[in-house]
Amino acid sequence: MTIAMSESDIEAYLDREFPQIHLGRRTFHVEEVGPMFARMRMDYHERHLRPGGTISGPSMMTLGDLALFVAILAQCGPVSLAVTTNLAFNFLRRPGPVALIAQCRLFRVGRKLAVGEVSMWSQGSDEIVCHATGTYALPSAK
Amino acid sequence: MTIAMSESDIEAYLDREFPQIHLGRRTFHVEEVGPMFARMRMDYHERHLRPGGTISGPSMMTLGDLALFVAILAQCGPVSLAVTTNLAFNFLRRPGPVALIAQCRLFRVGRKLAVGEVSMWSQGSDEIVCHATGTYALPSAK
Amino acid sequence: MTIAMSESDIEAYLDREFPQIHLGRRTFHVEEVGPMFARMRMDYHERHLRPGGTISGPSMMTLGDLALFVAILAQCGPVSLAVTTNLAFNFLRRPGPVALIAQCRLFRVGRKLAVGEVSMWSQGSDEIVCHATGTYALPSAK
Amino acid sequence: MTIAMSESDIEAYLDREFPQIHLGRRTFHVEEVGPMFARMRMDYHERHLRPGGTISGPSMMTLGDLALFVAILAQCGPVSLAVTTNLAFNFLRRPGPVALIAQCRLFRVGRKLAVGEVSMWSQGSDEIVCHATGTYALPSAK
Repeated sequence: MTIAMSESDIEAYLDREFPQIHLGRRTFHVEEVGPMFARMRMDYHERHLRPGGTISGPSMMTLGDLALFVAILAQCGPVSLAVTTNLAFNFLRRPGPVALIAQCRLFRVGRKLAVGEVSMWSQGSDEIVCHATGTYALPSAK
Repeated sequence: MTIAMSESDIEAYLDREFPQIHLGRRTFHVEEVGPMFARMRMDYHERHLRPGGTISGPSMMTLGDLALFVAILAQCGPVSLAVTTNLAFNFLRRPGPVALIAQCRLFRVGRKLAVGEVSMWSQGSDEIVCHATGTYALPSAK
Repeated sequence: MTIAMSESDIEAYLDREFPQIHLGRRTFHVEEVGPMFARMRMDYHERHLRPGGTISGPSMMTLGDLALFVAILAQCGPVSLAVTTNLAFNFLRRPGPVALIAQCRLFRVGRKLAVGEVSMWSQGSDEIVCHATGTYALPSAK
Repeated sequence: MTIAMSESDIEAYLDREFPQIHLGRRTFHVEEVGPMFARMRMDYHERHLRPGGTISGPSMMTLGDLALFVAILAQCGPVSLAVTTNLAFNFLRRPGPVALIAQCRLFRVGRKLAVGEVSMWSQGSDEIVCHATGTYALPSAK
C-alpha cells in the first residue's frame, strides 16, 4: 500500500487551504503518515489552556478532527471538500501543560464515507487522555 | 423551579475563571438561562472561519461544550471542577458567516453526572447546523 | 409537507422485510408518523428485561435504531438498502417494567445521509430514560 | 497486574445474574479476559440476523455492551450495579452469517467511571465490522 500525500505535501496543503489553524502561532504539526494512519503533534501554547494548566477540551477536539482529516489526505489525496459529519469524544484524564500527540487510525475509507479513531496522549507519556471517533463525507467526484 | 446563577452571574464567573475563551476578542455571550436550559450566542469572527466563509467545526464544538457548561452553572451554581467526560457532534449543514445560536437542554442532572443536548443554528435561520450531546462529571463534594 | 408512507404502510413493510424484529412476540408498534417524525411503542415483555425489572440497554438501542428507520421510511419511502452508519446513546434513568415510547425527529435528510435523534420514556411518564442520535446512509439510486 | 475474575468466573456470574442474554439459545461466550481487556464471541444464530443474512445492528450493539461489561468484571470484580451511561457505535461493513468476535480494551477505570472501546469482526476475518466506545458508571460503595 502506498500513500497519496507525504507529510510535507500535507503540511504545505494545510498551510495553503486552512491557514486559520495556525492563527496566533503554528502549533499543529504532521509527524508521520502512512496507509490509513496519521500522527500529529500539538505544541503547548497559552491559547490551548484552561485553569490549572490543563489543555482545553476544544483544543483536543480541534486536534482530533485535524488528525482524522490528515489521515484521509494521506490515504485519498487533496479532498478539500471532505466534511466532518460526526465526531464523538471521550475525555479520560486532564493532560498536563506539554505537547499532545494524536494518532489516527482509519477503520474504513469507502466511496462515500471515511471513518476512523484518534487516541491522544501527552508527549512522553503513554496514558490516553482523550479518544475520538469520527466520520468524514467524501466528495462524490473522486 | 429556580436557577442557581443568572445570565450576568455566569458571564462574570466565566470572565474570572475561564478568560481564555475570550482570547482574541469576546465572541461568546450568555443570552438566556433557565431551569435545565441555556442559550448562547457566538459572534462571527475571523478566528471561527474555514475556507468558503463557513464556521469551523472546532468553533461549533467549543460553543457546544460551553453551552452545556453554562446550563449546568445555571442549574447547579459555580461547579468549577465539573469536567466534560464525553461529547458527540453531528454536523448537519455548513453555517454561513453570521453569528451562531446554541440552545442547550439538560436531560438529567444527577448526583455524579449531568447530561444534555445542544442544538445550533445561524442567527435568523431555523435550520439546525450542528447537534451535540454531552456529559459532565460533577464534583462529589457539593 | 406530505409523507411517503403511512403508519399502516410502514407496519406492513416491516412485517414483510424485517420479520425478525417480531421474533418471540410482536412488541414494536408504529404509533404515528409525520414529516421528519415518527413515534414508536415497545411493549413490555420478558425478553426486554434485566434484573430488577428494568428494560435492557440493548432493547432500548433496538427501539432507537428502529424509530430512526421508521421516520426515514415515512419521509423517503421504502429505502430497504438504507444502513445505519452510526448510533450514539445516552442512558439517563432505569425504565420500569412498562411499555417504552420512542419519538424520533429527523434533523436532516440529504442526498446521501439522514440524521436524527430519538427520545424515549416510559409510557405515562415524561422523564427521558434514553436519548439517541444516529445516521443512516441512503442508497444512491433514489 | 492481575484480574479480579477469570473467564469461567465471569460466565458463571453472567448465567446467574443475567440469564436473559441466553434467551432462545446460548450465543455469547467469554473467550479471554486480561487486565483492562476482554474478548467475546457471539455465535451465528437466526435471532441475530437481518435480510440478506447479515447480522443485525442490535445484535452487534448487544455484543459491544456486553464485551465492555465483561472487561469491567475482569478488572473490578462483580459490580452488578454498574450501569451503562453511554455507548456510541460506528457500523463499518455488513458482517456475513458467521460468528462475531468482539475485543474490548478499557481506556480507563476510575473511581466513578470506566471507559473503553470494542472492535468487532467476523470470525476468521480481520476487517472491523463495528466499533464501539462506551462508559459505565461504577457503584460508589465498592
